[in-house]
Amino acid sequence: MRIRRYPLFLVLLLLLTLPVWSESGTFEVLPASLVDAATALREKALESSDAYSFVASLTTEVGPRLAGSEGDRKAVVWASRKLAEYGLDVSLEKVTVPHWVRGEAAGHIVEPYPHRVELVALGGSIGTPEGGVEAEVLEVESIEALEALEPRQVEGKIVFFNRRMERHPQGAGYRTAVMPRALGPSKAAPMGAVAVLIRSAGTSTHRFGHTGGTRYAEGVRKIPAAALSNTDADLLEAQVATGKTVRFRLELGCRMLADETSANVIGEVRGREKPEEIVLLAAHLDSWDLGTGAMDDGAGCAIVSETGRMIAALEQPPRRTLRILLTANEEFGLSGARAYGQRHADELANHTAALESDFGIGKVFVFRSGVTEDRMPLVRDIERLLAPLGIAHHDMPAFGGADLGPLRPARVPFFDLPQDATHYFDYHHTADDTLDKLSAEDLKQNVAAYVTAAYVLAETTYDLGRAPESAAR
Amino acid sequence: MRIRRYPLFLVLLLLLTLPVWSESGTFEVLPASLVDAATALREKALESSDAYSFVASLTTEVGPRLAGSEGDRKAVVWASRKLAEYGLDVSLEKVTVPHWVRGEAAGHIVEPYPHRVELVALGGSIGTPEGGVEAEVLEVESIEALEALEPRQVEGKIVFFNRRMERHPQGAGYRTAVMPRALGPSKAAPMGAVAVLIRSAGTSTHRFGHTGGTRYAEGVRKIPAAALSNTDADLLEAQVATGKTVRFRLELGCRMLADETSANVIGEVRGREKPEEIVLLAAHLDSWDLGTGAMDDGAGCAIVSETGRMIAALEQPPRRTLRILLTANEEFGLSGARAYGQRHADELANHTAALESDFGIGKVFVFRSGVTEDRMPLVRDIERLLAPLGIAHHDMPAFGGADLGPLRPARVPFFDLPQDATHYFDYHHTADDTLDKLSAEDLKQNVAAYVTAAYVLAETTYDLGRAPESAAR
Repeated sequence: MRIRRYPLFLVLLLLLTLPVWSESGTFEVLPASLVDAATALREKALESSDAYSFVASLTTEVGPRLAGSEGDRKAVVWASRKLAEYGLDVSLEKVTVPHWVRGEAAGHIVEPYPHRVELVALGGSIGTPEGGVEAEVLEVESIEALEALEPRQVEGKIVFFNRRMERHPQGAGYRTAVMPRALGPSKAAPMGAVAVLIRSAGTSTHRFGHTGGTRYAEGVRKIPAAALSNTDADLLEAQVATGKTVRFRLELGCRMLADETSANVIGEVRGREKPEEIVLLAAHLDSWDLGTGAMDDGAGCAIVSETGRMIAALEQPPRRTLRILLTANEEFGLSGARAYGQRHADELANHTAALESDFGIGKVFVFRSGVTEDRMPLVRDIERLLAPLGIAHHDMPAFGGADLGPLRPARVPFFDLPQDATHYFDYHHTADDTLDKLSAEDLKQNVAAYVTAAYVLAETTYDLGRAPESAAR
Repeated sequence: MRIRRYPLFLVLLLLLTLPVWSESGTFEVLPASLVDAATALREKALESSDAYSFVASLTTEVGPRLAGSEGDRKAVVWASRKLAEYGLDVSLEKVTVPHWVRGEAAGHIVEPYPHRVELVALGGSIGTPEGGVEAEVLEVESIEALEALEPRQVEGKIVFFNRRMERHPQGAGYRTAVMPRALGPSKAAPMGAVAVLIRSAGTSTHRFGHTGGTRYAEGVRKIPAAALSNTDADLLEAQVATGKTVRFRLELGCRMLADETSANVIGEVRGREKPEEIVLLAAHLDSWDLGTGAMDDGAGCAIVSETGRMIAALEQPPRRTLRILLTANEEFGLSGARAYGQRHADELANHTAALESDFGIGKVFVFRSGVTEDRMPLVRDIERLLAPLGIAHHDMPAFGGADLGPLRPARVPFFDLPQDATHYFDYHHTADDTLDKLSAEDLKQNVAAYVTAAYVLAETTYDLGRAPESAAR
């Protein structure tokens, strides 16, 4: 049996540094009544909110819902019904989305030691010709390393981008790991490569390939691209390390079909005093097709929808309108977010705050805000309300999430409640993104955080102002 | 951020109960020279044994090696060469093995909420007709629960055996979980079932089906059988729980081909005084086809082979012959073990001890022996030598492992060095049984345990006797 031993001094250190929470701190701008109401919502969410059932129902009754697919259509119907059940005013806004189908995928190391390996097509990849593409493998660590080569070294080869993603609570490793996925094919094709393989841009040590969109640059020859599971990338790496010639055969059945119509699903609690002012909570309804999208972004949809349900159930609605936005097609080019930005262009100046939940299922552990320095008294008050949830102030400005991008030029103040993502990239974009990984307790903490922040933002008379100019870029 | 807090008293308790190892205990039967030699081997194994490279080479250069497959043939050639490199006298003994091929597998929940699910055919299953088998699902917990039903309730249905396997350091949960896999089809077919699905007989929370052999009873209609990943079993369970009719379509491309010839690979260090007396170390060279068999039983082969290498490298060989036996086809009916028993029938009375390594990659944590009570002084001496490795005495008699079964009637004394299997069934018989899960350090501890025990057993002049009569059953 293995026993982890924790040195005594470390345990003592931990005990000494455990934060002592207090709710008795003085609030700077929020009146006691608002503090009490927000506190009550927070405690109720911790006790009895139920985002888990939302995800269970979505993943069981709908499942995968890639943009343009049958699942996508079902998800729109399902979500409209669900938000109406939750007491929200529901509307649908049509969105045109691409429709890519994965088909079957197979990868074989042909030489020196034949193996069938686990891989998945990158989203948007073209398929291979009948019989696949077979070529010698050229391993590189990064796009920079590829670009340092002569085209004759790349000509006719399958380029294998092989860099391990680093594990990090804020998912920092993803930003580097994702580059070959997004740009690899467009960088390798002009140098003569016939296909691209990448080590999965994820931290899973299980045998799942990690999908995600790749982008073919305008005017560049399209070549097929796939991600090997980390385990199978190890195997390919080991064969390359023998110094022998390594040949690989890639077969992908994917292809792009005609565009389809999907929809953004919107649910509102109309504001009692300033209904034209909007606090927006966003998440995306679409998912990749390999898992059931329980985390990405079933959980996010559940968290913001449950927040909507709790606020809709209040005796009186908050001053401003609370709008829940479940977007179409985040994964495959942000069509839903863009459509929302266009359709609501005139209204964006009245979006007083926006939050997005799309970073997994961990507990929220920091709060980032995107207001000008003079509005920090309100931020500090919200932080006082969030502190009992184990959520700390974070100095970086709020990022807002991919779907809030179109609100950026209008300087909508963003607020982030990011989850601990240490384990998120073990599941993200893989077949393993399924319901059984979720903790109902951690979801309660998420809802508590969102309902606290959203209620204060929708109810306060304090003027939030606009985001700093620097945030509009 | 999540912080696990360990109460202080628990830490103190742990510190107080950490065993204090001592090598100064009096040995009862072993002379100091043998104790010193065994101790030196143990320490050398901990420092510099290298079972990991054996597994790395086997899984990279050969990979999956299901009985009768191309990989099986390659593995025999590979292992013969490897054992010769290790300084052992190598011989091959032909074994006739079945040859089953998996083909493709697909499972779909058709109603009420359509999903494609992850499943794998059980080893030996027949395939389905073109287009698959589609029928209503009947969920039962166990074979007993199935047998309590009327045949008319089962007629025309797909029986879904749905019991979760319990996690346990000694793998105790497997014995129960494996029953529907082994017997399910033969119990369900006479009641009119058209196919069998089981929840995987494993503890993985990832999306892998767990294969393993099923046995069609003589004279019973054969029906196809597959294992759902635990995640997908959850999904099917959730759909059954809605109370709606659940329909499922199963498509399996597996079939049985003609028998093939494989081989047991044997490597020996011939004894210097009693070469006719044999200490046998066994593991199985074949594997399932989904992963690369790094754990099951690449690790076992590596541990016993590395033990052989260390003993072959001694200045003088031990008194008795040390025989490393890498069997053919353990997974699919123990053909190699049976062939060994038959071919060496006359010699079994001279097998003075036998050990098998086939329980994963954890650290060895107990020692079980299969000698008569009067031989316990030697057992206690071996335990004194194993204690510094964190290996404790275990009261249960040695079991010996599946491949040692044919030695049982000859009352060969068995000795078990079972590994901590808490996590073994997360990987066992799945696509996830791959090299990256192995710890080189833990393998060193395994080799240290085997080389210590094997050397003492091969070198001691103490008469081990035969296993008790009760062990022969």
